Amino acid sequence: MSIPTLFFAPIQNDIQEVEQLIRAQATGYHPDLQAALDHLLLSGGKRIRPTVTLLIGKMLGAAPQPLLNLAAAIELLHTATLVHDDLIDGSLLRRGNSTLNAKWSPGATVLTGDFLFSRAAMLAAGSTSIPVMELFASTLSEIVNGELAQLFNASCQIDREEYNRRIYAKTASLFQTSAAAPALLSDAPAEIVDAFRQYGYEIGMAFQIMDDILDFTGQQEVLGKPVASDLRHGIITLPTICYVEQNPQAAEVIALRSGDCSTSTQNLDALIEAIRTSGAITQAAAEAQDHVRRAVEALDRLPDYPEKPHLEHLARYIVDREL
Amino acid sequence: MSIPTLFFAPIQNDIQEVEQLIRAQATGYHPDLQAALDHLLLSGGKRIRPTVTLLIGKMLGAAPQPLLNLAAAIELLHTATLVHDDLIDGSLLRRGNSTLNAKWSPGATVLTGDFLFSRAAMLAAGSTSIPVMELFASTLSEIVNGELAQLFNASCQIDREEYNRRIYAKTASLFQTSAAAPALLSDAPAEIVDAFRQYGYEIGMAFQIMDDILDFTGQQEVLGKPVASDLRHGIITLPTICYVEQNPQAAEVIALRSGDCSTSTQNLDALIEAIRTSGAITQAAAEAQDHVRRAVEALDRLPDYPEKPHLEHLARYIVDREL
Repeated sequence: MSIPTLFFAPIQNDIQEVEQLIRAQATGYHPDLQAALDHLLLSGGKRIRPTVTLLIGKMLGAAPQPLLNLAAAIELLHTATLVHDDLIDGSLLRRGNSTLNAKWSPGATVLTGDFLFSRAAMLAAGSTSIPVMELFASTLSEIVNGELAQLFNASCQIDREEYNRRIYAKTASLFQTSAAAPALLSDAPAEIVDAFRQYGYEIGMAFQIMDDILDFTGQQEVLGKPVASDLRHGIITLPTICYVEQNPQAAEVIALRSGDCSTSTQNLDALIEAIRTSGAITQAAAEAQDHVRRAVEALDRLPDYPEKPHLEHLARYIVDREL
Repeated sequence: MSIPTLFFAPIQNDIQEVEQLIRAQATGYHPDLQAALDHLLLSGGKRIRPTVTLLIGKMLGAAPQPLLNLAAAIELLHTATLVHDDLIDGSLLRRGNSTLNAKWSPGATVLTGDFLFSRAAMLAAGSTSIPVMELFASTLSEIVNGELAQLFNASCQIDREEYNRRIYAKTASLFQTSAAAPALLSDAPAEIVDAFRQYGYEIGMAFQIMDDILDFTGQQEVLGKPVASDLRHGIITLPTICYVEQNPQAAEVIALRSGDCSTSTQNLDALIEAIRTSGAITQAAAEAQDHVRRAVEALDRLPDYPEKPHLEHLARYIVDREL
């Protein structure tokens, strides 16, 4: 699905430059790296993070080339983390396309992810801003730390705070950086940087909640993976948390609370069907909408830049998208 | 083995600060990351790369804190690459200590390596120098690209140029950066940076050749792995190349040339014993000495800094060390 024209239009050419910048990162290295990079970029993605970066950077008058480098760095960092995630999860498909690890050995996949990290760092250095570099590096620490925590912690945890921490690390941290970094790059005053940081945080939280909702409501063919794949792997997301809160006495909930979220396929299928058709989805969607509302409130703290409506529209798109 | 006092003495306290800086990188993250980092640092290593960085940075008057950050970034980058290397090679021991992948799942090992990359990038940003950041990122690209090329290329290649490219990517590139980055950090003139770059390149090449010699001449207990483990994995290093050049008619060489370096254990054991006791080791050591000589020549192009003898001593130590 392409990003709606309204907020995409002002940065359409820049996004193409960002993609060219990313593709150029394999130049001069092993030819299979170019093939991997092209495959990863062709597998789509909405380029929503660099769109945020470019809209905010242009709004604040960031220098054009450092801004393009930063936007490319953020998209490439995102891509690199997906390469290692898919390997660790053993995922063979992403957005209906084969993952790198479906085609390459684990060793080659690890190294390709590492290579993409190195090129993302190179592009981030091309922002020529030390504060941006530091934010960029600490965001990667945050993302990886979140993945590790998920790996080490007990599965099947029904815990809102834990869920919020996890989706912050996994998704909202990079959205936050996508919005705060261009403000830092533009030497904006602290309160402007803070407002954009808040905006990025809120749309990132909303984005991941929507992903977690779509994991339940989407069709397997569109998702490119089984419905409720997280729950099937013992990962509890917001729809399940809402369902548990709304139906504390339901038999499946009692089974789930006893840690039974991955033992019986039959129970699990019943639980998934119950969540899909319950008010839990509506409740989770309302919580995503709350984040969008707070994102728009963060924009209200900013001066009346002419481009502000684009960011508001983008925030609303986050919860209206179908995938 | 500790680094000889003569060149280690002037930076002994700084090395301790570098180690503390590295240890502090896990603060605030998942506690198992601290355990992993401590284990990796305790597993030893000679800290030769940060020693090079500190000696040169102090010689040129680099600002103390950015220099410490840079030295820590370089050692941590080295550590991070080893974590992924050991995973990919399936190595269970390094310097006689268990590797991370010997204890952790592949997923946790990949993520720990990623985390260390992110913290190395954070420390590199702490150099507060954009040229240093760029050099740092491109060095990681070089290292990873070399690993990938080794993975994708045919094994059992007897090719000097290929060998030189491989050991440059694997080892000399980071030594080069260890020497050039502190010069960049000190805003040294281009010819000074170039001389240090050359110095770093030459000691890096010498270092890897010595490692490849010790792989043949060392005792299994000291190496912490079987003798000639590279050759047993189809990786041809300089001692083998020299042996092939000196003994083109030997039966094992003819077998090797036909691509038979991993098929027959008996032939392989005979070849390894022949290399160990032949003039090939002396020849390879002489080539390492040539690199050290060129490293010292690069130093001769520099003004007479009082610390120059330390760097000369360090270069000679590279080929005199036992492991």
